[in-house]
Amino acid sequence: MTGALRLLRIAALLVAAWLPSAGAGAAPDPLPSWVAGASKSAIVQFVTTVTDAGSDGFVPPAERIATFDNDGTLWSEQPLYFQGYFALQQIRDMAPDHPEWKEREPYRSVLANDLPALLAHGKAGLMEVLLTAHSGMTADEFVASVARWREKARHPGTGKPFTQMVYQPMLELLDYLRDNDFKVYIVSGGGVDFMRVFAEEVYGVPPEQVVGSTLDATLEMRDGIPTIVKAPKLVLIDDKAGKPVGIYRHIGRRPILAGGNSDGDLQMLEYTTVQRSGADTTPRLGLIVHHTDAEREYAYDRDSHMGRLDKALDVAPERGWLVVDMKRDWKRVYPGEQ
Amino acid sequence: MTGALRLLRIAALLVAAWLPSAGAGAAPDPLPSWVAGASKSAIVQFVTTVTDAGSDGFVPPAERIATFDNDGTLWSEQPLYFQGYFALQQIRDMAPDHPEWKEREPYRSVLANDLPALLAHGKAGLMEVLLTAHSGMTADEFVASVARWREKARHPGTGKPFTQMVYQPMLELLDYLRDNDFKVYIVSGGGVDFMRVFAEEVYGVPPEQVVGSTLDATLEMRDGIPTIVKAPKLVLIDDKAGKPVGIYRHIGRRPILAGGNSDGDLQMLEYTTVQRSGADTTPRLGLIVHHTDAEREYAYDRDSHMGRLDKALDVAPERGWLVVDMKRDWKRVYPGEQ
Repeated sequence: MTGALRLLRIAALLVAAWLPSAGAGAAPDPLPSWVAGASKSAIVQFVTTVTDAGSDGFVPPAERIATFDNDGTLWSEQPLYFQGYFALQQIRDMAPDHPEWKEREPYRSVLANDLPALLAHGKAGLMEVLLTAHSGMTADEFVASVARWREKARHPGTGKPFTQMVYQPMLELLDYLRDNDFKVYIVSGGGVDFMRVFAEEVYGVPPEQVVGSTLDATLEMRDGIPTIVKAPKLVLIDDKAGKPVGIYRHIGRRPILAGGNSDGDLQMLEYTTVQRSGADTTPRLGLIVHHTDAEREYAYDRDSHMGRLDKALDVAPERGWLVVDMKRDWKRVYPGEQ
Repeated sequence: MTGALRLLRIAALLVAAWLPSAGAGAAPDPLPSWVAGASKSAIVQFVTTVTDAGSDGFVPPAERIATFDNDGTLWSEQPLYFQGYFALQQIRDMAPDHPEWKEREPYRSVLANDLPALLAHGKAGLMEVLLTAHSGMTADEFVASVARWREKARHPGTGKPFTQMVYQPMLELLDYLRDNDFKVYIVSGGGVDFMRVFAEEVYGVPPEQVVGSTLDATLEMRDGIPTIVKAPKLVLIDDKAGKPVGIYRHIGRRPILAGGNSDGDLQMLEYTTVQRSGADTTPRLGLIVHHTDAEREYAYDRDSHMGRLDKALDVAPERGWLVVDMKRDWKRVYPGEQ
């Protein structure tokens, strides 16, 4: 040991010996918006186990991968997936360059703000609107349009900016996991390029840790600058069985924790938690956010068009998943609430 | 400032004041296998600039993304891309389950070890062999087959295991970048699932930081276990214009450093280094490994079938890219050499 290292070690020991008295024994609660109870305990127990080097359930930091759905798991998704509002705004913003849309469906319905008429065009109509809203522009132009929308748009129910309708208890959970050397990913049906615009600022999740539905892109030389242009062709639908595929493509490791809120997350939860053999004793946590709070947020599950939670709710008990009851388990829903 | 923090700070100051005398002024050389000269200086100068908080060229750690090609940049690629040897072995291993291959091209040529005959089947024949060797099995089975190959296979020229034919100076460069808070990615034409099997152990690059050519996958429930199965359909050819597309899909940020060795890296180098506007003053480094050392490795560029370096070599001077001359700039090529 060199002299400098020895001195550092002595300093560290000094500080360590002194620290316990500093906090007077009370570590700050990492999850202050979670009601003390079974859900909070299960989370803390899981994190404590996988980070305890003396425990049989210890997981090395590199393997501490956690994946979270976004819509309905980290932010609200009613009465319409928030990216849907962006897409409608985007079509309105693009309309001046497309005078033919006034006469052409499904665009005419969008421009007339006639949501029932739009929905009457079914999945194909919605997909056309989504592809049009998300392609044809450069990557930089797309980022700018999402940033503009984020700045100006307000939720029709709460009047809040959409990125303020994130769940405070989940923000605390993401921080708690990162403080315990988890690498936290978003794995969502939403568009990867859409979420990346705000995921770092809002969730602390950097762009490279966002996995989502993905459109193809091309590289074009424009005015001498290599430019990424978004193409109207899906290369990943990051929902249902697409979620484990997205995790495999992007992360290449199996998570030890997955959080979701709908049947779109069922396969990700199974992929994360189902034991592969008797020798596989790694602790694994599946978490479902159950929307039970009509007063502070929304109450929905089996019959909802957005975020339907039916089959995953049925299998949760046998799979041992933690079903978080928003009304019971959360002291507050959105940031800033008392 | 709490008492504990104050004590920590005092300890840190003590150590800092004392440290300069500890090493007698000589910090260990982070790049000992690089000859002192223009290439080494350019690398150190770049890293010093982007990490100096007082410099105009300072780049925050989160933006310090470096991307490296693999074949010919981090390990050798002659006389055949190493993954090609794996694919041939894989076909031989699969042959007992495919008696029809004895009579069917291009498999017959592979099983007869007749490389010229295989090459005569052109790109389509090679692609069929590659797709067959890399799909149809589960992700876990594929990992096991690569691991077996890695263990047993030897390079026909050197007799070394292939993963020992990595470039010691590049290993030092990856470490040096990580020590300076760079996030180091592999972005290679090679298969992502192939490279991920050994990238962490050999290069210190975790699976989630490997981007490569990608086959589609499906999720199947097998014996009650959600299982990823590799499908024979390319979703990304991570070469040429596909490299910036792969970076965009996977990382979502533009690198500030890219390293390659062939025209397959041209677009990645341009995407990384071309200034987008006068306001864009971030320092950017493009690096080309030029194979000039027929004695210690191989000498090839414009006429090579593997890793052809032609156009990128032409534009390197005007783009300001650093062309590393293996013979001149590297004290040793492979680990363990004097």
